[in-house]
Amino acid sequence: MREISPENISGFVVGEGCFYVESGKDPKYKLGYRVRAAFCIELREDDREILEAIQETLGCGNIYQLNFGRYKNYSKKNWKPHVKYRVSNQNEIIHKVIPFFEKYPLFGKKKKSFDVFTKIVKKIEFKEHLTPYGLEETKKLVSELKSLNKKGM
Amino acid sequence: MREISPENISGFVVGEGCFYVESGKDPKYKLGYRVRAAFCIELREDDREILEAIQETLGCGNIYQLNFGRYKNYSKKNWKPHVKYRVSNQNEIIHKVIPFFEKYPLFGKKKKSFDVFTKIVKKIEFKEHLTPYGLEETKKLVSELKSLNKKGM
Repeated sequence: MREISPENISGFVVGEGCFYVESGKDPKYKLGYRVRAAFCIELREDDREILEAIQETLGCGNIYQLNFGRYKNYSKKNWKPHVKYRVSNQNEIIHKVIPFFEKYPLFGKKKKSFDVFTKIVKKIEFKEHLTPYGLEETKKLVSELKSLNKKGM
Repeated sequence: MREISPENISGFVVGEGCFYVESGKDPKYKLGYRVRAAFCIELREDDREILEAIQETLGCGNIYQLNFGRYKNYSKKNWKPHVKYRVSNQNEIIHKVIPFFEKYPLFGKKKKSFDVFTKIVKKIEFKEHLTPYGLEETKKLVSELKSLNKKGM
C-alpha cells in the first residue's frame, strides 16, 4: 500500500478513531478509582494494512484480532472479521499520541473529544487524579468525554 | 472550524465516503439502461461543517438533510439526524471529484473502490456505455464496485 501521510491519518481518525477513558472503582488504585486513557481504531480485517501504517507512523500501540464476545460466529450473523488498533500505555498516549494530533490536528466533533481527552490525560500526567479534588474534576471531564463520544446511529 | 487540508479530506473519505453507481433498466436511455456515477458522504448532523468544508474544497455537490424513509421518527429509534453530501452531476464527477482524489490519493479498500469507479466514469465520459459491448463491460465493473462497497458490519 502507498504511504499514508500524517494529515491523511488525522483525517481518517476523525471518521474512525476513538479517544476514550476507562474508569471505575478499583481497590488496587489510590482513592479506589481507576482512570486510564486509551486511543483505538476498529476496522474490518480487510483494511488491516491501514492500521499497520498508522501503528508505524505513531510508533506505538498494538493490533488485535477481534474474535471474542459479540464477534464470535460473526460469519453466521453477516459480521465481517474485525481488527483493532489500540494504544493504552499512558506514556505513549502522553508522548506519542497527543503530540501527533496536536501537530496534525483533527476537526469536527472528534476535535472536541480530543480536547477533553487531552485535559484528562494532563491530569493523569501530573497525577492530579490522585488527589480527591483532582479526581472529582477528572470524573467531570470523563463524563463530558463520554457524552461527546456517544454513538447513536 | 479550522481549515481541513486536501490530505485530511482524502483520509476522511477513506473512512466515510462512498463512490457508487446507480444503474438499472430505464426506457428513457439509449439501450434501455441507465448508468450514473455518484459520490457521497453521510454524517450525523452535528458534523455538518465537515461536509461544508469538503463541498467548498471540491467546488461542487449539494448537502441534504435526511429526514425521509428510514430517517423518519429517528429520535424514537435513537437515530440522530443525518446529513448527506452528494455529487451526482457527471461533469463534476469527471472534472472535479476524480482529479481531486487522483491528486490526493485514497488508500486501503476505498482506493480499490475508487479505481473501479474511475474506470466506469471513463466509460461514461467517452460514451462507451452507450454501445452494447461497452455497456456489458460497464455492467461487469458496476458489479465489481458493488461487491467492493458491500458493507456488512
